[in-house]
Amino acid sequence: MATNHFGNIFKMTTWGESHGKAIGVVIDGCPAGLEIDESDINAALALRAPGRNPYTSPRKETDEAEILSGVFEGKTTGAPISILIPNKDVDSSKYEPIKDLLRPGHANYTYLEKYGIFDYRGGGRASARETACRVAAGAVAKKFLHYYGIHLIAYIKQIGNILATPNLEDIFLLRNSTYQSSLFCPDANANSAMIDLIEKAKSEGDSLGGVVEFFVKGAPVGLGEPVYEKLESILAQGLMSLPATKGFEIGSGFRSVGMRGSEHNDIFSKKSGKISTETNFAGGTLGGISTGMPIIGRVAFKPTSSIMQSQKTLNTCGETSSIELPTGSRHDPCVAIRAVPVVEAMVALAFADAMLMNRSARL
Amino acid sequence: MATNHFGNIFKMTTWGESHGKAIGVVIDGCPAGLEIDESDINAALALRAPGRNPYTSPRKETDEAEILSGVFEGKTTGAPISILIPNKDVDSSKYEPIKDLLRPGHANYTYLEKYGIFDYRGGGRASARETACRVAAGAVAKKFLHYYGIHLIAYIKQIGNILATPNLEDIFLLRNSTYQSSLFCPDANANSAMIDLIEKAKSEGDSLGGVVEFFVKGAPVGLGEPVYEKLESILAQGLMSLPATKGFEIGSGFRSVGMRGSEHNDIFSKKSGKISTETNFAGGTLGGISTGMPIIGRVAFKPTSSIMQSQKTLNTCGETSSIELPTGSRHDPCVAIRAVPVVEAMVALAFADAMLMNRSARL
Amino acid sequence: MATNHFGNIFKMTTWGESHGKAIGVVIDGCPAGLEIDESDINAALALRAPGRNPYTSPRKETDEAEILSGVFEGKTTGAPISILIPNKDVDSSKYEPIKDLLRPGHANYTYLEKYGIFDYRGGGRASARETACRVAAGAVAKKFLHYYGIHLIAYIKQIGNILATPNLEDIFLLRNSTYQSSLFCPDANANSAMIDLIEKAKSEGDSLGGVVEFFVKGAPVGLGEPVYEKLESILAQGLMSLPATKGFEIGSGFRSVGMRGSEHNDIFSKKSGKISTETNFAGGTLGGISTGMPIIGRVAFKPTSSIMQSQKTLNTCGETSSIELPTGSRHDPCVAIRAVPVVEAMVALAFADAMLMNRSARL
Amino acid sequence: MATNHFGNIFKMTTWGESHGKAIGVVIDGCPAGLEIDESDINAALALRAPGRNPYTSPRKETDEAEILSGVFEGKTTGAPISILIPNKDVDSSKYEPIKDLLRPGHANYTYLEKYGIFDYRGGGRASARETACRVAAGAVAKKFLHYYGIHLIAYIKQIGNILATPNLEDIFLLRNSTYQSSLFCPDANANSAMIDLIEKAKSEGDSLGGVVEFFVKGAPVGLGEPVYEKLESILAQGLMSLPATKGFEIGSGFRSVGMRGSEHNDIFSKKSGKISTETNFAGGTLGGISTGMPIIGRVAFKPTSSIMQSQKTLNTCGETSSIELPTGSRHDPCVAIRAVPVVEAMVALAFADAMLMNRSARL
Repeated sequence: MATNHFGNIFKMTTWGESHGKAIGVVIDGCPAGLEIDESDINAALALRAPGRNPYTSPRKETDEAEILSGVFEGKTTGAPISILIPNKDVDSSKYEPIKDLLRPGHANYTYLEKYGIFDYRGGGRASARETACRVAAGAVAKKFLHYYGIHLIAYIKQIGNILATPNLEDIFLLRNSTYQSSLFCPDANANSAMIDLIEKAKSEGDSLGGVVEFFVKGAPVGLGEPVYEKLESILAQGLMSLPATKGFEIGSGFRSVGMRGSEHNDIFSKKSGKISTETNFAGGTLGGISTGMPIIGRVAFKPTSSIMQSQKTLNTCGETSSIELPTGSRHDPCVAIRAVPVVEAMVALAFADAMLMNRSARL
Repeated sequence: MATNHFGNIFKMTTWGESHGKAIGVVIDGCPAGLEIDESDINAALALRAPGRNPYTSPRKETDEAEILSGVFEGKTTGAPISILIPNKDVDSSKYEPIKDLLRPGHANYTYLEKYGIFDYRGGGRASARETACRVAAGAVAKKFLHYYGIHLIAYIKQIGNILATPNLEDIFLLRNSTYQSSLFCPDANANSAMIDLIEKAKSEGDSLGGVVEFFVKGAPVGLGEPVYEKLESILAQGLMSLPATKGFEIGSGFRSVGMRGSEHNDIFSKKSGKISTETNFAGGTLGGISTGMPIIGRVAFKPTSSIMQSQKTLNTCGETSSIELPTGSRHDPCVAIRAVPVVEAMVALAFADAMLMNRSARL
Repeated sequence: MATNHFGNIFKMTTWGESHGKAIGVVIDGCPAGLEIDESDINAALALRAPGRNPYTSPRKETDEAEILSGVFEGKTTGAPISILIPNKDVDSSKYEPIKDLLRPGHANYTYLEKYGIFDYRGGGRASARETACRVAAGAVAKKFLHYYGIHLIAYIKQIGNILATPNLEDIFLLRNSTYQSSLFCPDANANSAMIDLIEKAKSEGDSLGGVVEFFVKGAPVGLGEPVYEKLESILAQGLMSLPATKGFEIGSGFRSVGMRGSEHNDIFSKKSGKISTETNFAGGTLGGISTGMPIIGRVAFKPTSSIMQSQKTLNTCGETSSIELPTGSRHDPCVAIRAVPVVEAMVALAFADAMLMNRSARL
Repeated sequence: MATNHFGNIFKMTTWGESHGKAIGVVIDGCPAGLEIDESDINAALALRAPGRNPYTSPRKETDEAEILSGVFEGKTTGAPISILIPNKDVDSSKYEPIKDLLRPGHANYTYLEKYGIFDYRGGGRASARETACRVAAGAVAKKFLHYYGIHLIAYIKQIGNILATPNLEDIFLLRNSTYQSSLFCPDANANSAMIDLIEKAKSEGDSLGGVVEFFVKGAPVGLGEPVYEKLESILAQGLMSLPATKGFEIGSGFRSVGMRGSEHNDIFSKKSGKISTETNFAGGTLGGISTGMPIIGRVAFKPTSSIMQSQKTLNTCGETSSIELPTGSRHDPCVAIRAVPVVEAMVALAFADAMLMNRSARL
């Protein structure tokens, strides 16, 4: 069924395979009048680019998005915005030898069973390459949100068992410290320890899991729709649609399970004349609708499935075999790192849509 | 915006407030030919009924659903199935004294800000009462799934810091042990400890969080749609739309973060002639599509927001006040318990829809 | 598939069979703050009631709708509005003798083939009875439109070959003359001739076709969405979803085919300081978006399929048979008449949705 | 709002402006396993190309579509099919002098009012250029339908007051005679008369309206969904979303208004062992669901709004002016002709979607 889209009013549809001619996204429903430029999109894509740090896949693509429609004289017109990203650094030959093997932790088995055909080159449609389109669309969504004073960021909260403790006081300082880190980790101490951990895993041909946290500032009260499109519900859908995700949390998340109600309830009080809550275990929503407090949540990423070790498996005929990635293969020891700008993009898309949906709340 | 529905093809729309005349659900898209009876629905509702155990809200409603359309001579006709559940045990007077107070952890503040009006009686539309409709629709979804040999169950996995270790070998035995427990906890030892913990919290007028796990057996390979309606993506949306949820996990969940790829990758092998995986850290999906292994995941519920203690708060004018629930108020010391049948229903609804969506995968 | 709904933001879902317990509609997405009362709905239903004139089906239902949710203290809350209409005057016994016969012009053959089961009593889901739900929802939509100064009406434009020439100067006078006619025909002369024609057809056990025209005043410029939800596109979908419809026109309609461009182009000019067009062959839209001129269009209804004559047919086994409606059967000699309030309702629903969709056009 | 898409399961989203870099379409939901090739699409586009006959706009584009995704080794994979069509023959300079004038019969006024911005070059998004994307997607839909033995065609039924009488006996012969005509008119006599009429209108700088008829053979019983997505309802939406359309009919259409029920009812009978109807006034559906008879209907197109005459108008400031198209402007004396392949495409898209939706009708 047709499910390659996200959003109700601010809606994106993505297309393209990892090793096809190009990938792209169509944004339908972006309001007219928003200033947008290819440089906005390319700046966002650069953050996702694999060359950014030594711990992510060595694909040397420098993605250059092209806006093909929906923008006139520098502004959106209300028409669909089509963004195309050519696939430049494509070498599918490495996938030939393993095309008949079920890759552990990968989607080729399930795609083959579902569709009877699979574009195995680079993971085809199931590749994380698809997320570049989300980043491109997310750049437009962020511009839209900035117009309304909403700012957001994602960063590495955890790699393996190393936890970061970011300073959330000022979102712009937080952004700076995040982008200074090659791992998108705003906590310098944790950052160092994480680098060591990654080096070790990498040297062993192994991989690590991670947690990405997102943080949204400036959202008005009232975003999120009852009942099935609560803010956290849509965030969960959007973020759990990212490859390699295993969990989602809003606010206190799973930690809330060990707490008492008397401790967890955020007490309402007035702060500089505005209603707010003294704590924010809720993570910024009540009944699925934003409270005006920062929205905060997390996504868990499993350790990268592609590892530089030989693994037992089957071929597509069900015969026992073993699989080993060819030397020089693309390999991220921790997929959570490159996911950071993608998480940010998905959160932005969810909020842009929530802002527009909220326009219908009242007469 | 219109978001009181769930599902693409097998779609339910729910309506109704906690203290209105009735609540209900319209299921649009259930295939014709399914045998369905009001008793199927009422049996499911009975499991959710608050009178079932001493640890849930004392509302004495014995929900009796009525099928108003879509069933003819005992079978579905393909037309919308309208199910109505009258609200019987409604006494709104207790809500009068607190109607102008912001209830900590509750949605009245956000609804009021969003809509400018709120049916405060019993929590109105934001009440967990709405979930009865999900259970009713879920009963139809389960009948549909049973027809195809898919069985599922939800149960208490954790309350406070007490973890249950259920036996997943046989889903029918698992169901028995789950329903024998007043807490829906299939692990007898954990069950006893949980009862003690709840008694203590209750005596202190306080509340506890919990984790509900779901488990699906018999799902074919191929369920779930790329890219934005992956199986876990839709499960996450559906489950995070439940009141009081703070987190969602599939398979290894957040635990995967501390694992290595070499450890986490589920190795494919053949078992009685069928391709399966030796472990199931994935939780039954790869690339968002079911692998044929059991699908397993979890939802975190915060400790109930309504507690029997006085709490500081504001009124709707922003003035400092305090709030105390009146003696005899409805009060669940652990909201996760009553959520068990609702989690089961939402999972069933997601799978019924996935089954129908999958019919369009191939020529 | 789930298609018993209409609208994107202001969305209704209808359910119920002609001879089931009840029929109903859920309106999801009506903005909060709208004053609404059951009397609004029942007044609209009364216009559709068959007892209104001697030329429509003698079913003596006096529909009394009940609002079950979504309205609190007289105003909409933003929650789904569930409206239930009991089926009172139900006698299915007349349908017993013909239940295995394919009714010419009716849907029982196609439903049976599609679903393998059909609630034949009174036409089940395929009955025009379903349109009462549209009228109920349309009453809410009209209230919403009135709030913004948009008024609309439908009336009989043609029966058989008799054409009415209504005076469109003043929509309120037009409404009066329409409702004074038992046929909803605002042209008194045409009305008399139509009555004669209907009497004749009725006496012969035969039926007549008709054209219903709709007219909308006060709509702002900008309603309608490119490309696939142009205003006329959605009106066409909504109106061609009515039973017995065979055609739809906007503005000049099929008559435009015989015109020249130089004649058909509506010339822009200024009238009391406002941009308008000197003629309105367009029917109030350009590029699918409202121009600020009145929106006008028409729907063609075939002659009623149920006639009081014996007709040759087959039974469900494909054997030759003949069918005759039992004496005293419900029978509308001209189905277009009762369709008038339904056309009005569908147009109102399309406009209410267009108003809300238009809120997302600009920053 | 996001409305640049058509279809529920087999869904296309189109993007692009007339004088932008390119236009394109993303088909999401086409089942895997369908053989498809760029030549299929380009053959369809060639039929729409303006160079085909002397009576359509002289834009010399030879559209060459490129498939960017969703096809692997010649077959669809179930992933979105992205098709890009570059805009080659673009000269926007002619639009400069008239960019501040309201073009009679065109959409620039309404777009400007709605969005506050309009890409006026070549009509931007409102241009008929967009329909090339529908033709491209329609080519895929037709391949899908052919696989199931469903064939369809559209042709000119009427230009001005000249009516064609096509021979519908054999759809393949009908296709031949249609494509032999430069006007897509399968009736040779009518064709000659139409050519004369067009020559005359053209020499006068004027334009003509037309009717396009569509005809579908081989559709199984059961296509079309109650209640709001009846087959004719979706056809009406799709076809009334084409530029310049003023009316839609199914079967007997507006002619049914002058008929009696006894005459209009199609009598069921058996023909070579199959249930069919003796006449087909219904046009192939009953209750919105296909009967197995051919589906036949018509669309009315107004005379082209762009004429080679000076017309009175206003500028965007509301000041009186006059507008004249520059010499050498693109100009179709009868827009219905080029619409023929587009009507065919839209009907194909509606049927492809109906086929997939129908897969969920039964257990």
